Amino acid sequence: MKHYKDLSPSLRTIMTPGPVEVDPRVLRAMSYPILGQFDPEFTELMNETMEMLREVFQTTNQWAFPIDGTSRSGIEAVLVSIIEPGDKVLVPIYGRFGNLLVEIAERCGAEVIMIEKDWGSVFEPEEIISAIARVKPTIVAMVHGETSTGCIQPFDGIGAACRQVDALLVVDAVATIGGVPVKTDEWQLDAVIGGTQKCLSVPSGMSPITYNDRIEAKVLRRKTIERGLREKGSAVSTGKPVASNYFDLGQLQDYWSPKRLNHHTEATTMLYALREGLRIVLQEGLAERFDRHKRHEEALVAGLQAMGLTLYGDPACKLPVVTCIRIPGAVDGEVVRTMLLNSFGIEIASSFGPLKGQIWRIGTMGFSCNQKNVLHVLGALEATLHWHGVDISVGKALQAALAVYAHKREE
Amino acid sequence: MKHYKDLSPSLRTIMTPGPVEVDPRVLRAMSYPILGQFDPEFTELMNETMEMLREVFQTTNQWAFPIDGTSRSGIEAVLVSIIEPGDKVLVPIYGRFGNLLVEIAERCGAEVIMIEKDWGSVFEPEEIISAIARVKPTIVAMVHGETSTGCIQPFDGIGAACRQVDALLVVDAVATIGGVPVKTDEWQLDAVIGGTQKCLSVPSGMSPITYNDRIEAKVLRRKTIERGLREKGSAVSTGKPVASNYFDLGQLQDYWSPKRLNHHTEATTMLYALREGLRIVLQEGLAERFDRHKRHEEALVAGLQAMGLTLYGDPACKLPVVTCIRIPGAVDGEVVRTMLLNSFGIEIASSFGPLKGQIWRIGTMGFSCNQKNVLHVLGALEATLHWHGVDISVGKALQAALAVYAHKREE
Repeated sequence: MKHYKDLSPSLRTIMTPGPVEVDPRVLRAMSYPILGQFDPEFTELMNETMEMLREVFQTTNQWAFPIDGTSRSGIEAVLVSIIEPGDKVLVPIYGRFGNLLVEIAERCGAEVIMIEKDWGSVFEPEEIISAIARVKPTIVAMVHGETSTGCIQPFDGIGAACRQVDALLVVDAVATIGGVPVKTDEWQLDAVIGGTQKCLSVPSGMSPITYNDRIEAKVLRRKTIERGLREKGSAVSTGKPVASNYFDLGQLQDYWSPKRLNHHTEATTMLYALREGLRIVLQEGLAERFDRHKRHEEALVAGLQAMGLTLYGDPACKLPVVTCIRIPGAVDGEVVRTMLLNSFGIEIASSFGPLKGQIWRIGTMGFSCNQKNVLHVLGALEATLHWHGVDISVGKALQAALAVYAHKREE
Repeated sequence: MKHYKDLSPSLRTIMTPGPVEVDPRVLRAMSYPILGQFDPEFTELMNETMEMLREVFQTTNQWAFPIDGTSRSGIEAVLVSIIEPGDKVLVPIYGRFGNLLVEIAERCGAEVIMIEKDWGSVFEPEEIISAIARVKPTIVAMVHGETSTGCIQPFDGIGAACRQVDALLVVDAVATIGGVPVKTDEWQLDAVIGGTQKCLSVPSGMSPITYNDRIEAKVLRRKTIERGLREKGSAVSTGKPVASNYFDLGQLQDYWSPKRLNHHTEATTMLYALREGLRIVLQEGLAERFDRHKRHEEALVAGLQAMGLTLYGDPACKLPVVTCIRIPGAVDGEVVRTMLLNSFGIEIASSFGPLKGQIWRIGTMGFSCNQKNVLHVLGALEATLHWHGVDISVGKALQAALAVYAHKREE
């Protein structure tokens, strides 16, 4: 039999747009023995997680719970539960993850109407608002923060425009939740999907979502109960069921409610991790946490620009937690990434689709977003580019970043 | 702000049919810092996990990897990836989880043909074989071990019968993998879905699957590539896409292959856990592990019968890892379960649908399947029933179980 070694992963400085480093307190939480899913101690932990999610999503929605899967599972759960075949879904696209919304909606049988912006920019809210008025969609699905391009979409007036035509507004906040304000209620977002492995700094494998009674009304019209769970004489739904069992919010909310109607077996250890991650977010405070993300972004950007590198994308819509850098023509981006990993133990990200080979992406997210990491990545990138003979200003990046930190402390 | 306490779950003896106790070595693996999903160290761990899964599934299939979700996510991934609307799917049902297969298949648009056995029994293989010949389905989906009834279905000749009519055989081995032999290749199973939180003793949250080239051929006919990942000039599929992005095996196998085409972000820590859980299974040895499960079942059953309790279900098809007990008429099953939990720290399971209130279910699975636990549950159940005035034989259960253990040691 082949011998498989003891697990002993190298310690990395992970500066990608996710997954990022996990707070040691979250790792510790994952090492606790498990409880059964219906153990009263465990259902209390489930309830606490729902409470904390409401705070992080800035909502009073009843429904706020994780889907047991990675981030896109939360997106798919919301879309498959509300899209009925033929529903018109409007998707404003300004990067890869807008395309993912299109793909999921199409697979759900939607008639998808796309409006597109060049990657690296976002929409004026008015452009989206007029498309909503023109298309009169059933659902508008859009991305808050695009990790593929490092851009963030403002929502001014979009929620109100949706309500005027009775459209549901679904927002992918996978990249922003916990790092940038996501104001579910104030912005009139009907459903919001977050990610764990980015600004919440919990391992990938859960996707927290929240949704309001407008979404729930649509879900309940399609609700069914598993045949093997029905008791004698219980009613059978007459509506058209959701095209997924695993992602059926009608069944999931019965599992997360005091009914505790069995659906899947909750992912115990991931729930421990999410609860601890949320607890850490609330201990830090949302406002303080968003400030921290802004501060380290500013230092990172100052350092990169002092080195003479050029950022990608419109600075007016820059996503504070992802910084995209044009790869200098004189060097192969993958060679640099490999040297950063092997010599410095640092991971930064490459890019997707049309941007492949054109930009690097550096995340400043959650637990990874700290001064030690920002200075380490700047020093390492400077040395690596210098090593490969790229024409940069040597000796300036760390000074510029340190100046930002010194200035911030004086404020 | 509300104060949320430090996590400190009670230590439970978990004797349900899942989730069960997690090996401390798996818990330790989950406390390691994470790696990025494309870090060469991590992709090596992914590859090792695939190798070990092939051994546990007893297959030479290329494809053996986890779906990032709980057990039913693996079932849905296989079914949604191969069922095209209108496909005939034959489902032999002998418990709750057969009904789940029906529900998922119907949501995928299948024309489902059910054959049913009373709960507590299973099919003669000939009954299924003749149904296959009669129905000529595209897919046969069935459960190997029904935790709802504690029964196990033999497969003799069923795989061959499927091939005669060119049907794909999909088997839910969530309850059996790692505790009872699951011979994927020998039994000619085309796709098999396992669970982590039962006999593998890894927390819930992943579902390992395997499938062969017959399944892959159907998947590849429907394959698409995410629009946001397509490079200039890359082909667009013309087939009808799978009705899910998250569960599309065509995209998932590109992520698990050397292509590493980005799909979701692999659930890093759960992958650490699964790898460690599989390593422990292979260190013990499959044959030794199955023997261990049989030994402790035998001791448990001897103890329960010595107490004067009656088992539920046909003994000829008893699932070795789940034992179902008729609740004596003189007592409320939930009162007993509550006392077991609160006084003894033991969790046993209630039951579903038509059996609700009729039986208890005790699991002997994975790390929970040990002498200490079996003796603890027998002693506790005896004392609890005695406490509630149920007429049982007192003082015999532990003696009977000890006699089984003593006899086994002499062999």
